Amino acid sequence: MRVRMKDIAKLANVSEAAVSLVLNDKPSRISEKKKNEIKKIAKELNYSPNIAAQSLAKNKTRTIGIVIPDIENPFFSKLCKRFEEEFRRLNYLSIIVNTNDDYRIEKNLIQMLINRGVDGLIIALSNSSFSKLDEQQRLINSIQVPFVLVDRQVSLENVNQVYFDNYIGGLIVTEYMLNQGHRKIAFLTGDPNVLGTRERILGYKKAHSNFHVNVDSKYIIPTGYRFQNGIEKARDLFSLTEVTGVITSNDMVAFGIIKKAHDEQIDIPSRLSIVGYDNLEMGELLKFSLSSIIQDSNLLVKNSISLLIDRIKNPKSKKKRVILEPKLVKGNSVKKLID
Amino acid sequence: MRVRMKDIAKLANVSEAAVSLVLNDKPSRISEKKKNEIKKIAKELNYSPNIAAQSLAKNKTRTIGIVIPDIENPFFSKLCKRFEEEFRRLNYLSIIVNTNDDYRIEKNLIQMLINRGVDGLIIALSNSSFSKLDEQQRLINSIQVPFVLVDRQVSLENVNQVYFDNYIGGLIVTEYMLNQGHRKIAFLTGDPNVLGTRERILGYKKAHSNFHVNVDSKYIIPTGYRFQNGIEKARDLFSLTEVTGVITSNDMVAFGIIKKAHDEQIDIPSRLSIVGYDNLEMGELLKFSLSSIIQDSNLLVKNSISLLIDRIKNPKSKKKRVILEPKLVKGNSVKKLID
Repeated sequence: MRVRMKDIAKLANVSEAAVSLVLNDKPSRISEKKKNEIKKIAKELNYSPNIAAQSLAKNKTRTIGIVIPDIENPFFSKLCKRFEEEFRRLNYLSIIVNTNDDYRIEKNLIQMLINRGVDGLIIALSNSSFSKLDEQQRLINSIQVPFVLVDRQVSLENVNQVYFDNYIGGLIVTEYMLNQGHRKIAFLTGDPNVLGTRERILGYKKAHSNFHVNVDSKYIIPTGYRFQNGIEKARDLFSLTEVTGVITSNDMVAFGIIKKAHDEQIDIPSRLSIVGYDNLEMGELLKFSLSSIIQDSNLLVKNSISLLIDRIKNPKSKKKRVILEPKLVKGNSVKKLID
Repeated sequence: MRVRMKDIAKLANVSEAAVSLVLNDKPSRISEKKKNEIKKIAKELNYSPNIAAQSLAKNKTRTIGIVIPDIENPFFSKLCKRFEEEFRRLNYLSIIVNTNDDYRIEKNLIQMLINRGVDGLIIALSNSSFSKLDEQQRLINSIQVPFVLVDRQVSLENVNQVYFDNYIGGLIVTEYMLNQGHRKIAFLTGDPNVLGTRERILGYKKAHSNFHVNVDSKYIIPTGYRFQNGIEKARDLFSLTEVTGVITSNDMVAFGIIKKAHDEQIDIPSRLSIVGYDNLEMGELLKFSLSSIIQDSNLLVKNSISLLIDRIKNPKSKKKRVILEPKLVKGNSVKKLID
């Protein structure tokens, strides 16, 4: 049985209101001696306030909901951990929910988190929400608590969001390949409905035009974000025998390609160069080290939390879009074709 | 602004009580026509019940808290995802919290989840709780909602728990090494305070005694569970030059060792054989495939959920301990030293 204020009141021989004043550190005319007695009893009984009741009364829960599309993806599991650590430092409890990249689940989870009373939300939108932009926009507009969209950008103005510049990411990764002499470069993109994917494709195309190299549209292959997606698209990729380099939507997909290349004795990088995205720790395990784009999760976390806390403290604060810069980490998974 | 019952009542020109009866599908003398009108208005206003208020009233939230020590560890992030999927199928919302393997955080998070009203908890205990067994036991006994301990076993009777047999795991992995002719086998264990680790060490010793091989205690090296822990202990391991095989606490630690072995040009498996634990997908990426113990997360999830739901429906149901069998998945990371 949970200990209630009235149990403490009975034992301290005071009113329930007096207990409430003391335990909530409200000013009152209760003597210091009595205050201490009440606090001692509360401690002995291991009293903890009923947060559901408190949250109804105060409308503050010191809880943040973190909405994540794929908790199994190491980029997101690492991100969750960083958010949790940082929120804990600020005395907020984090609760994490996984939308499985499914718009309907996402909608339900966000509504349920709001109904349960969270002070704010950190949301990495589901991919599938990008194929229903009207509904995505309606969902975003319907969120009645402070929130920040992270990682997956939307074109809406007047929304707090923090993400890495996908155009720049696509540009620098492609220019790197071109600089190494590659001219037939495949791109295993994420979902082309997703705005970030479209931005990366623009960067890929811009790099080609900077180098006066034509893009063959069959080199742009929509793929996904999971290990299994890399495995599945390997055959399509390997059938483009003239291709010397491949850019991937993320390291997990790169790992899938690397696994299949190994199975089919296609040597990386001598026969096929490859670049990832996310710079996961696991990339270090390969025979070579995987070149990859790093999106510094600490930067993402710090900027998002600062925006969210601002908004919680001052609901009328101006909304901001923070765009962070991705960086290339060079490994040795790209063969130099020219000097 | 959240839409409230009184807003609907006003528009439908009925009492708030009438709205409550209709929206909660309670029997009443309200006409079908009026009922439909009320439901239609609620739908148009996008009304959703206030769960915090409901949970105070009904004491049911259809929410499960999942308490995880390290969300960044792929074994646990995969487990979370499976739990979330399975609970969703059963119409429960999962909220995940990360304890960072820290007993004090764990204690706070469990108490906060209970205060916020969850119907039940799935808990993988923190390692650090095993170094304070009295407090761990007090915490477990203080949990006022149905719960199941998963993965990390405790010796307490009368607690619902589901875990893989660590003694058998330690035994079969060591017998495999011994069968391949290895006689100097190091063991990078997890935290020796943790009961599961002690069980695995017993299995390791039993296998040696079955093969009439003495165990050198300096081969048993407490290590941890993270990639970085493997990196850190590699030097100690490599300094035992007579050792031909190493058993690890999990695949992440094995990956750390493999990374350092690669850096120091120690060939696996010709110079050092290695076996992991958890059989992570990433093990397929290596030059060789990592032999590992598989702990089928689907089995763990199904058994745990079935116990928890049982307990939620019937709080007096008998408590059970379910011990699952780990299995060895043979790769080619262990060299055969004898025929």
